Amino acid sequence: MGMGSASSALASRASCLERALSSATSRSVTLARTLPTAAAFIHRASKHSCSCLSNGRQSLNPSSASILNPSWIPQPSLTSLLGRKPFYSVRAEAADVALASPAAKQSKKEVKKGKGQSEATKVTPKSEDFSQWYLDIIREAELADYGPVRGTMVIRPYGYGIWEAIQGWLDRRFKETGHENAYFPQFIPYSFIEKEASHVEGFSPELALVTVGGGKELEEKLVVRPTSETMVNHMFAQWIQSYRDLPLLLNQWANVTRWEMRTRPFVRTLEFLWQEGHTAHSSAEEAEEEALRMVEVYREFAVEQAAMPVIVGRKSRSETFAGAVRTYTIEGMMGDRRALQAGTSHNLGQNFAKAFGTQYLSEAGAQEFVWQTSWGMSTRMVGGIIMTHGDDTGLRLPPNVAPVQAVIVPIWKKEEEKEAVLQAGADVQKKLAAGGVRVKLDANEQRTPGWKFNFWEMKGVPIRIEIGPRDVKENAVVLARRDKPGKEGKEFGVSMDEATLIPVVKERLASIQDALLAEATAFRESNIEDVSSYEDLKRVIAEGKWARGGWAASDADEAKIKEETSATIRCFPFDQPEGGRTCLWTGKEGAEVALFAKSY
Amino acid sequence: MGMGSASSALASRASCLERALSSATSRSVTLARTLPTAAAFIHRASKHSCSCLSNGRQSLNPSSASILNPSWIPQPSLTSLLGRKPFYSVRAEAADVALASPAAKQSKKEVKKGKGQSEATKVTPKSEDFSQWYLDIIREAELADYGPVRGTMVIRPYGYGIWEAIQGWLDRRFKETGHENAYFPQFIPYSFIEKEASHVEGFSPELALVTVGGGKELEEKLVVRPTSETMVNHMFAQWIQSYRDLPLLLNQWANVTRWEMRTRPFVRTLEFLWQEGHTAHSSAEEAEEEALRMVEVYREFAVEQAAMPVIVGRKSRSETFAGAVRTYTIEGMMGDRRALQAGTSHNLGQNFAKAFGTQYLSEAGAQEFVWQTSWGMSTRMVGGIIMTHGDDTGLRLPPNVAPVQAVIVPIWKKEEEKEAVLQAGADVQKKLAAGGVRVKLDANEQRTPGWKFNFWEMKGVPIRIEIGPRDVKENAVVLARRDKPGKEGKEFGVSMDEATLIPVVKERLASIQDALLAEATAFRESNIEDVSSYEDLKRVIAEGKWARGGWAASDADEAKIKEETSATIRCFPFDQPEGGRTCLWTGKEGAEVALFAKSY
Repeated sequence: MGMGSASSALASRASCLERALSSATSRSVTLARTLPTAAAFIHRASKHSCSCLSNGRQSLNPSSASILNPSWIPQPSLTSLLGRKPFYSVRAEAADVALASPAAKQSKKEVKKGKGQSEATKVTPKSEDFSQWYLDIIREAELADYGPVRGTMVIRPYGYGIWEAIQGWLDRRFKETGHENAYFPQFIPYSFIEKEASHVEGFSPELALVTVGGGKELEEKLVVRPTSETMVNHMFAQWIQSYRDLPLLLNQWANVTRWEMRTRPFVRTLEFLWQEGHTAHSSAEEAEEEALRMVEVYREFAVEQAAMPVIVGRKSRSETFAGAVRTYTIEGMMGDRRALQAGTSHNLGQNFAKAFGTQYLSEAGAQEFVWQTSWGMSTRMVGGIIMTHGDDTGLRLPPNVAPVQAVIVPIWKKEEEKEAVLQAGADVQKKLAAGGVRVKLDANEQRTPGWKFNFWEMKGVPIRIEIGPRDVKENAVVLARRDKPGKEGKEFGVSMDEATLIPVVKERLASIQDALLAEATAFRESNIEDVSSYEDLKRVIAEGKWARGGWAASDADEAKIKEETSATIRCFPFDQPEGGRTCLWTGKEGAEVALFAKSY
Repeated sequence: MGMGSASSALASRASCLERALSSATSRSVTLARTLPTAAAFIHRASKHSCSCLSNGRQSLNPSSASILNPSWIPQPSLTSLLGRKPFYSVRAEAADVALASPAAKQSKKEVKKGKGQSEATKVTPKSEDFSQWYLDIIREAELADYGPVRGTMVIRPYGYGIWEAIQGWLDRRFKETGHENAYFPQFIPYSFIEKEASHVEGFSPELALVTVGGGKELEEKLVVRPTSETMVNHMFAQWIQSYRDLPLLLNQWANVTRWEMRTRPFVRTLEFLWQEGHTAHSSAEEAEEEALRMVEVYREFAVEQAAMPVIVGRKSRSETFAGAVRTYTIEGMMGDRRALQAGTSHNLGQNFAKAFGTQYLSEAGAQEFVWQTSWGMSTRMVGGIIMTHGDDTGLRLPPNVAPVQAVIVPIWKKEEEKEAVLQAGADVQKKLAAGGVRVKLDANEQRTPGWKFNFWEMKGVPIRIEIGPRDVKENAVVLARRDKPGKEGKEFGVSMDEATLIPVVKERLASIQDALLAEATAFRESNIEDVSSYEDLKRVIAEGKWARGGWAASDADEAKIKEETSATIRCFPFDQPEGGRTCLWTGKEGAEVALFAKSY
């Protein structure tokens, strides 16, 4: 888009605002009537321009742009045209203290209101401030909100819908791999946490403690579970008697609490939702196999469902889970090139079994400690999806995890066109739903088509289906892909017939799924550099990239790198070159290749 | 079964024990070989007799009865033949202190071990001690176990499977009725709870408080949610601006904590799982409709899925939810004729809206408080299912909520018969699974068919499918219904052909579902008596029944009845006689009919 059309868009925006203010109390203006027909609708050509209700081909009649929600009026802003409600927003001082205290929030809100919120509700461009972009997207796409207690988060229905997609897939796969769900209490006697030495060391700074129950001071304070290895072992020790009770393969869906100081919605919150698998086996080999099997399930989910091209590998000793022998991880590269640990699987060896006396009678008749694993994926994954695929227009959801895969926007100009268009929309919805597509018809008459376009783009719905009067006559629809802006992503004249429409929509969904993965993979590849010296590593990390190099040095050396560069070993990838590399620190030959990066 | 056959069963039992002791370390005795063929297997004729591995037609060869689990040996007992593992068990001093403290449990366990556990692991007859029967069933069917903190419960996979069936159905219906899932933080600032006067009064004695987080004393103590009305209103007040944001229809699946003193697994535990719906509306009428809609969803679930013939009605003022205007309830009659409140739906009016300032701009342009509802069903429902349908042989699960609807038990005598029988079992499993039946093949070679019969009866699986060598030859199976003991529930020669087997199994499942509902309904009807005076009421309650009579007296009078009889008004049923009745207390005409009963 050239400067000319950008300024025309700005003029249109100004008109929008004026018009909205003057017609604020009038609900009767059915603006949709003044809109051009479906064929005239084209998704805006530029993502960065003011996209109010303008589009690439023509500016709309300003009268079509006023938003009919009176609550919009006191806080006029560009993005209140995008989001349904003008939520307060918190601009964090620093990226890592995104969740402010309620008191701080309140005062900011008031200040903002006083000044007008034009800046506060805008989506910051990714390139300008990634952290703020992330928070803006979460607010505008209505994924989550801040809870009243510092560091807590409310997961709103659309965000929870993504979590349900994650849950659904994982739960099915866990059951296919022989696991059953159970539920363990969340209150853990404090003494349990102290039983496994490295576990208490790792978790004690983050504990929330219940000290009063039913009006009385408790004799033993209770830990609100940060993870359940100790509780699980307490029970396993009672349930497991002989080798015939093994393997014991359980999973639980639960909330967990970790008193984190630096929080960020989805990525790190005081309370979060996750699943935690807990298994017990009769041999070290079987436990190792299980730990590897489950990290592979996570990889499969990340790559095939969330279109996140994660790298699978083993954590370094210093990054291993508190109490585990080995931790496997999937690491994704976010849009700011920071690494996100998106799922971990731990081989616990016999550490917890020894601490809790989890023994079994072996086939040979001897009492043995069980070998265990645990593994978890959490609501953090929702943050990973946002930060992998989102753009300046909003979320972009991989079709496989999208709560809504296709949204139908009916468009009409004249009142007499309405019924046919809405009917066609309902028919198309029915057909696609029967064909297994998660489809929504947005028949809201209080919103203009342009508003809906922006709204569903913000929500990252993979395909928009437009139906106008001309389309109805031609028995066809217009498809618009969320992953390709403007004309490029548009397809006109797609037949409404089931035999055509269903396979075409499904093919496009598959194609979008592939395209998002390919795009993220290319981004990742262009941002990992091989390094062979510490100087190299420092340069690559300073450039914001990931450094890949041989590593055979000590934990202390690793700590030094972290201190000097803020980068940590994300993992030793499973995919290793033959014969190893030269250690970038010690110069030793045959070292394992490690990935260094700054992380969340 | 006459005395003769009972003593023959006892003799067989004694042989079992002796034999098991002598062959304890020998795993190689494939006892199944010595078993009679499938045709000879008949479910034991009497539920109360020792049913070790004997059956109605013939005692088995004692050698077939030893259980190959060495861990069984130190604690020989009848029911260790039924349960896979000899769990410790707690015999509560009184029914209402069923969940003992860990320390108390431990010492009891040791005492029991010292004495031998023959009594501890037996299922107490329902008629003898209902409360102990309930705990025995929970232990033996592996539904739940005691957590280490007093009053907490671990939900084991089989119990959780029933909860998943409840969740699946409710979640679908909630979505069909326009609700979306969300998740609210579980830590509530203490000040929130204090905002709604009757709410704080109702809940403050039951609160668990977090006072330490991340190693520091917190400035404001946090309540671990007992229910989320306050948290929800804090958020709704921010999300709701205008009438266009209404109705707001949310649900959350969550754990909640109430510091109960008298606990019982599933029925009342310190922490439990539930769903809580929270909605906001623009009129009192709409909120009332919603509250009624949701109690109807609960009724539908209880009656049609859980085969619990609940009575729907309105709570009396004194039993109304703390903070609600009206509470609707479904009340089920358990096997001991106590009432169980199995789900409630509250019309909250504007109580919480006023406490939290949850307002919206109406169509007329005025600021109005929203009208709200909340409604919940919990893991208590699992307890309701157990106590409605279970018998002395174990659980009896309504097919609609059974994790396993049909279990296939392959039976063979000679090694050369094994392959064909197992193959037929696998085929039948595949066919039924494809036909939409939740089916399990129990191909475990370490257990005898008789052991499996008892095990799956204890687990309440509605249909057992037996396949022996003769059945394979005849291309047929034997079906045994869990709800009809012995021969009565047996059907021989049912063809293995898909075209016959699938519809027959499905029809039997539907028939069992109906039969369990009919049985429970008949039981309920025969245990409710109409009363017209307080004397009547006292007599009926003393007989353990429910009393139905007119009520137009005061809350204080209601409290007097509770004090004197332990019975409370369970509800004013929706189903009322025309013109009302005479008040049993005041003699006033036209009183509403109330149901009085002792309850959980």
